[in-house]
Amino acid sequence: MARAGRRPRRDRATAGLLQPPPRQLRNRYPPFEILSADQIEAIHHASLQVLAEIGMNFLLEEARAILKDAGCDVDPSGPRVRFDPAFIEERIGTAPAAFTLHARNPERSVRIGENVINFCLVASAPHVSDLERGRLTGNFADYCNLLKLGQSLNICHMIAGYPVEPVDLPPATRHLDALAAMATLIDKALYGYALGAVRIRDSLEITRIARQASHEQLLREPSMTTVVNANSPLQYDGPMLEGVIEMARHNQPVIFTPFTLAGAMAPITVAGALVQQNAEALAGIAFGQCVRPGSPAIYGSFTSNVDMKSGAPAFGTPEYAKATIASGQLARRYHLPYRASNANASNAPDAQSAYESEMSIWPCVLAHCNVVKHALGWLEGGLCTSYEKIILDAEMLQMIAAFLEPLETGADALALDAIREVGPGSHFFQAAHTMARYESAFYAPLLSDWRNFETWQEDGALDATRRANRLWKELLAAYEPPPIDEAVAEEIAAFVARRKEEGGAPSN
Amino acid sequence: MARAGRRPRRDRATAGLLQPPPRQLRNRYPPFEILSADQIEAIHHASLQVLAEIGMNFLLEEARAILKDAGCDVDPSGPRVRFDPAFIEERIGTAPAAFTLHARNPERSVRIGENVINFCLVASAPHVSDLERGRLTGNFADYCNLLKLGQSLNICHMIAGYPVEPVDLPPATRHLDALAAMATLIDKALYGYALGAVRIRDSLEITRIARQASHEQLLREPSMTTVVNANSPLQYDGPMLEGVIEMARHNQPVIFTPFTLAGAMAPITVAGALVQQNAEALAGIAFGQCVRPGSPAIYGSFTSNVDMKSGAPAFGTPEYAKATIASGQLARRYHLPYRASNANASNAPDAQSAYESEMSIWPCVLAHCNVVKHALGWLEGGLCTSYEKIILDAEMLQMIAAFLEPLETGADALALDAIREVGPGSHFFQAAHTMARYESAFYAPLLSDWRNFETWQEDGALDATRRANRLWKELLAAYEPPPIDEAVAEEIAAFVARRKEEGGAPSN
Repeated sequence: MARAGRRPRRDRATAGLLQPPPRQLRNRYPPFEILSADQIEAIHHASLQVLAEIGMNFLLEEARAILKDAGCDVDPSGPRVRFDPAFIEERIGTAPAAFTLHARNPERSVRIGENVINFCLVASAPHVSDLERGRLTGNFADYCNLLKLGQSLNICHMIAGYPVEPVDLPPATRHLDALAAMATLIDKALYGYALGAVRIRDSLEITRIARQASHEQLLREPSMTTVVNANSPLQYDGPMLEGVIEMARHNQPVIFTPFTLAGAMAPITVAGALVQQNAEALAGIAFGQCVRPGSPAIYGSFTSNVDMKSGAPAFGTPEYAKATIASGQLARRYHLPYRASNANASNAPDAQSAYESEMSIWPCVLAHCNVVKHALGWLEGGLCTSYEKIILDAEMLQMIAAFLEPLETGADALALDAIREVGPGSHFFQAAHTMARYESAFYAPLLSDWRNFETWQEDGALDATRRANRLWKELLAAYEPPPIDEAVAEEIAAFVARRKEEGGAPSN
Repeated sequence: MARAGRRPRRDRATAGLLQPPPRQLRNRYPPFEILSADQIEAIHHASLQVLAEIGMNFLLEEARAILKDAGCDVDPSGPRVRFDPAFIEERIGTAPAAFTLHARNPERSVRIGENVINFCLVASAPHVSDLERGRLTGNFADYCNLLKLGQSLNICHMIAGYPVEPVDLPPATRHLDALAAMATLIDKALYGYALGAVRIRDSLEITRIARQASHEQLLREPSMTTVVNANSPLQYDGPMLEGVIEMARHNQPVIFTPFTLAGAMAPITVAGALVQQNAEALAGIAFGQCVRPGSPAIYGSFTSNVDMKSGAPAFGTPEYAKATIASGQLARRYHLPYRASNANASNAPDAQSAYESEMSIWPCVLAHCNVVKHALGWLEGGLCTSYEKIILDAEMLQMIAAFLEPLETGADALALDAIREVGPGSHFFQAAHTMARYESAFYAPLLSDWRNFETWQEDGALDATRRANRLWKELLAAYEPPPIDEAVAEEIAAFVARRKEEGGAPSN
């Protein structure tokens, strides 16, 4: 291959697994669009009308005061805030179109925006499962093991939440242990939860210590993300708004993600759910820009539908696919980085989990999504993290990463010489063109088994899920912590100890 | 929904399964392109250079005579034919851009070309499997059962080969029993194998009788397809070329599909494999147009890669995805209908089979593929047909069909009234807008299980593959043969009996 340097070499260091080395993925293909510019404008204008006429509840006095100062129409007797369309358009214009998110290992820093696509480890599931133990309540031991997998898999670009909720840790100090583990077990970009100002401040401080950055440097360099969900419809709650204020004041990126399940917390039509999503996201982003103009914000979409028979949320549906692609069009209209998810509603890491995930991954990629949350390990619509699903997802994402490598059509790739050399009725196995390229010509799978049926059967006839079970154990056994100065680890531990002594965070 | 008529109603007649009624799927989204116009021209010109300079082997004297008459450079001492670029461009220009393929039930006739996407039942596998019986050699009983599933599933638009090879039938008369069963068990468009002139003539005659069409009508109305594979590299064998001649003389559509596995029968680079695919497809199509200008032809792509460790074919790979999308660009350049496949190399109907299929289905749809072969039931790179995979595929394809329904953005869909009615902090379950639409608002799954974990577990914790096993049995048990006049069935049987008496087809 003429440009062999672009073809990633296999990284066999990690448990003998086949994975390309860490790299930023760029989607050089054109964004895919399912709505016309007129249709996007119709959604845009309807959203602005919602914000002007109905408005949103901001359930935090400090937030309402900030918006009142900025000239918004704040109800004196209640939580309602109404927004002038010009105000929204002006404020969202100050958010950056792209920025760098810094990790403690500079080689793991990622670009957020442009045509870069970042895959995140699963987040926030209350349960965890594997094939042997079944489904358990989230706990700190699994939390740490899942982080180790996230660190070891190069296709995992960043952490975007607790990979499972460590329910066995006390709520007031959970964030301290969780962040300290996150900051030491991995060297990729970190995440803190917007559950009140104190937790964000503590998480940012651990992030700062891990990076050995000064307070001024942290202000210049986004280093930790958080998600702020609207409590849809049309409401932001107090702890989340405190989170926005702290994050924006520290110039740290907030992913504003309305929770707009069509038919439940949003209108039953996808377009209606998008109108509401767009209104909620824009109001949140505009609020963050009032706190600190220019602070990084990410446009988040989580619009899916419910099963109208049971009311249960569904993901990776055709409606989800359309909402994800249309939301990418909206994010681009506002020149904002875009977040969506690799989602599914399956109860097992089975074929359903795979095809629903693919019905999420392809739309994310086609939509030029910049941050794909829950990219590795999600199950049950987010109620469970599956060890096996992490491996299934890693394979699906590695395949997508290979798909994003441009198809070369230089003279050497067109292979006229090879076709001449071989001629009709022969084969290319020994052609010079083949011999020069065979080691790295094609994507080499992590999990897929391409052996013939008889060989596969003799080797135990393990299906993909059972092979994934074997692979995550190998990966976990081979985990090596990323280097960290002893002094840094001690400084993090000392901070955690001091904050625990002070009682941690107040309950919200 | 303002245009409720466009939303398919559920068809619960078939075994209580949720499936939309039969319909032609149109892809109104723009075709997705991964190569620039210049890159497509580079492949085009390289293909013409291959055909002019190296040429192809046509292993049938009659075919070479036809090409000699048409002005081609035919080697007097061997099978090699070389083609002038202007000849190729001129001849492929006479093939129609679109045509109707007639079924014996006119409601099952399909449009081939334009933005229509047709999904075909699996074809040509030597083995068949289900969860209980495991993997068996193909046989006539399973052949018939698989056809019944193809008939019952509305997402299956046409038959494109024997869903499994009925190996227990003698080769000389196998095509007679196979076509007679196909023509009676289903009422969708039929398929005959291009294994010599006699088999095609017999298959066409059964097709004609089933449709009760005159010979003249058959000449006007394409009614049966066949696939002609190049024996890559750069060779068409005799029986296949006889098939082309018979099909073209009867104005029946030929799907020209080179078998270009990169690294084996084609260059190891995807671009090189595409150059060779394009050369082989264009030469075949040009040859068919020499036999009968204007006879329908379909541009086929089957370019994938092999596993360079074992030489085993791989499908649903990143390379396959790119080749499938690029081939759609080539087919559109020539204004020809386009065929690709839903392919995978998994040994089991598991998560791998699902994600490799999705890595095929999405590219097919994005490429505006018109005929998706092996859309339902393929496994093991085509060596096995799986009953469970048919159901997995049906779900994946039904989801894609729903994805292709345009996202409505009319005033009613934007749902401002509903958002007003509900307001902040409430929910939409009882909103008038919801109540009016909840029965048909979203895609209802065939196989996916969206119940919560506890309910699913109490009900046996069946994964998607085991649920698929239950579903195909229900579907098969509920099969009802499509109506056929007794006289027509008798005429088919009499033809088969007569041809068997005559000895059937000669061996090739």
